[in-house]
Amino acid sequence: MSKTLADIGEFGLIHRIHELIKKEGVQAPEVTLGIGDDTASFRPREGYEQLVTCDCVVEGRHYLPDFITPLDLGRRAMTMNLSDIAAMGGGPLYALVSLGLKADMPVADVKDIYRGFIMELNPFGASIIGGNITKTMDATFIDITLIGEVEQDKLMRRSTARVEDVILVTGYPGQSAAGLKLMLHSKPTKDLQKHPLVRSFNSPSHRIKEGQAVANSRLASAMIDTSDGFLGDLGHICQESGVGALLIQEQFPISEDLRQAALQLKLDPYKLFLQESDDYELIITCSPEHAAQIHSTIAAVSDMPVTEVGRTTDAAGDIQLKLPDGSQHPITSVGWDHFAK
Amino acid sequence: MSKTLADIGEFGLIHRIHELIKKEGVQAPEVTLGIGDDTASFRPREGYEQLVTCDCVVEGRHYLPDFITPLDLGRRAMTMNLSDIAAMGGGPLYALVSLGLKADMPVADVKDIYRGFIMELNPFGASIIGGNITKTMDATFIDITLIGEVEQDKLMRRSTARVEDVILVTGYPGQSAAGLKLMLHSKPTKDLQKHPLVRSFNSPSHRIKEGQAVANSRLASAMIDTSDGFLGDLGHICQESGVGALLIQEQFPISEDLRQAALQLKLDPYKLFLQESDDYELIITCSPEHAAQIHSTIAAVSDMPVTEVGRTTDAAGDIQLKLPDGSQHPITSVGWDHFAK
Repeated sequence: MSKTLADIGEFGLIHRIHELIKKEGVQAPEVTLGIGDDTASFRPREGYEQLVTCDCVVEGRHYLPDFITPLDLGRRAMTMNLSDIAAMGGGPLYALVSLGLKADMPVADVKDIYRGFIMELNPFGASIIGGNITKTMDATFIDITLIGEVEQDKLMRRSTARVEDVILVTGYPGQSAAGLKLMLHSKPTKDLQKHPLVRSFNSPSHRIKEGQAVANSRLASAMIDTSDGFLGDLGHICQESGVGALLIQEQFPISEDLRQAALQLKLDPYKLFLQESDDYELIITCSPEHAAQIHSTIAAVSDMPVTEVGRTTDAAGDIQLKLPDGSQHPITSVGWDHFAK
Repeated sequence: MSKTLADIGEFGLIHRIHELIKKEGVQAPEVTLGIGDDTASFRPREGYEQLVTCDCVVEGRHYLPDFITPLDLGRRAMTMNLSDIAAMGGGPLYALVSLGLKADMPVADVKDIYRGFIMELNPFGASIIGGNITKTMDATFIDITLIGEVEQDKLMRRSTARVEDVILVTGYPGQSAAGLKLMLHSKPTKDLQKHPLVRSFNSPSHRIKEGQAVANSRLASAMIDTSDGFLGDLGHICQESGVGALLIQEQFPISEDLRQAALQLKLDPYKLFLQESDDYELIITCSPEHAAQIHSTIAAVSDMPVTEVGRTTDAAGDIQLKLPDGSQHPITSVGWDHFAK
């Protein structure tokens, strides 16, 4: 039988994780103390803002243990945090991982979760420098703090969109939500795990390189990631920037996979695009005269499509959807609200 | 009836927390973006190491909800993290708070938890710059990431003790463990909450100013906080520094409160001193010729007693306890091990 956390104890687990990180992770010269003391320590680069974010996934709420491998779970939890750094135009440096684990969890699964973290961090030379492990009775949780950096004058914000800006979005928001719905309507089979939309949910991508290209271009007015769903996060931009938005439904990027899944699920693909979905795409606003350059800036580093889906307006906080028949309807920004009745 | 999180929703709660932090917390000029964007951002001071730690408390494991007020819970969770910064000789700057909360929790309790955080951070001009809230079904958890700083050549470590160093400890380790045991043997009354040892558990102190004084003196060889219990953390110093230790039992600082509680609980006060206890004192090692100066350095900033309890030895990893009859016995370092059977 495979060893569990109860077999090796907390310090045994910490030792194994430490060894794994030393062997498979990256060692950054700016880290003066990594795992193993009361705190980690590092020397920041001059001229850079330090970015810091934390995001948590809880078993049953943010992922379904029967439908995701421990490796994908680790990748997904790290990607959520990488996406926050991407939204600022920055790059990741250091992660701290706080885990709540059940005593009967196999040690091999915890190691695979860490391999998932490392798989996402290594391409950037970023590393895990600290953390904390707690026993939970019920649901496993993974809480990651990610520190990143961006040049001081290139920091992107959600609060700086202007009226009459173009609204751009990367990729295909809504795919992850459709993947989740497919899982909730199915048995956890291996075939299902390979479905491209289920992959979108279990193993989403971040847009770090796209975000950095946009920040470096200095051409965008605001940026945010779509972690609360396209409409929820466009709502954040509108609220924080004091603008409104007019969206053109027929311009929404709907992938062929999403169109087919929507048919199967009897759902409107445009609603899937708008509503809460864990896709980690970027919404970018810019003046109309810069839109073409933003497109080519991103195309230089990424195959990900960038689509113009509407414009900002001076009707602060008001988001309107224009349908193919020319009619316009106000839509409410809704994102993840964990406590709503 | 008082409002719960289910009544106001996640974004309603975030808004209230944001307002509370703006009103009652400190605004630091180095914070370029606080709560409200995808990440926070700050500009580090030149010549300083950035320290970063995270520690998590889970309901039922690290605290007993019937025995602690939300304000004390917030103070305690922040103090655990402040103590890690103290052990490095540093000062706190910024906190990120990740909460797992149940939907039926009163909003007023969450605000009191934050007031507890702020009460501990404000004296240092430190502030909460980010976080994350998740709904949990079962146990509430509070996971804090705390960022601090220390001058680059003053960073204290646990791995740099030398043979024949004096071992010093601040305060009275073991008081918190005795307080916990008193609670576990009693009903949660208001009188019990006022008991000094129960206060030690519910509302422990950190030793930031003592740690900073030690780091500034440049006279100590190593430092650690006692979050895993005195013996557990001395064990960490020994293991990481490649030294052993000889402890003199009759020199252990045992407070009168602890002595009385040990009698009542029929426990050995010296064992309470050694074993796991959440006191957040500091263990400091230094050459014998510097011990008096360390004492006076700490006395200049704090009323907290500092006691010499033994010496390090060249028997790497071996900790011996000398009893009043002159006999010596090896003791094993044991600290919190969450998963041990």
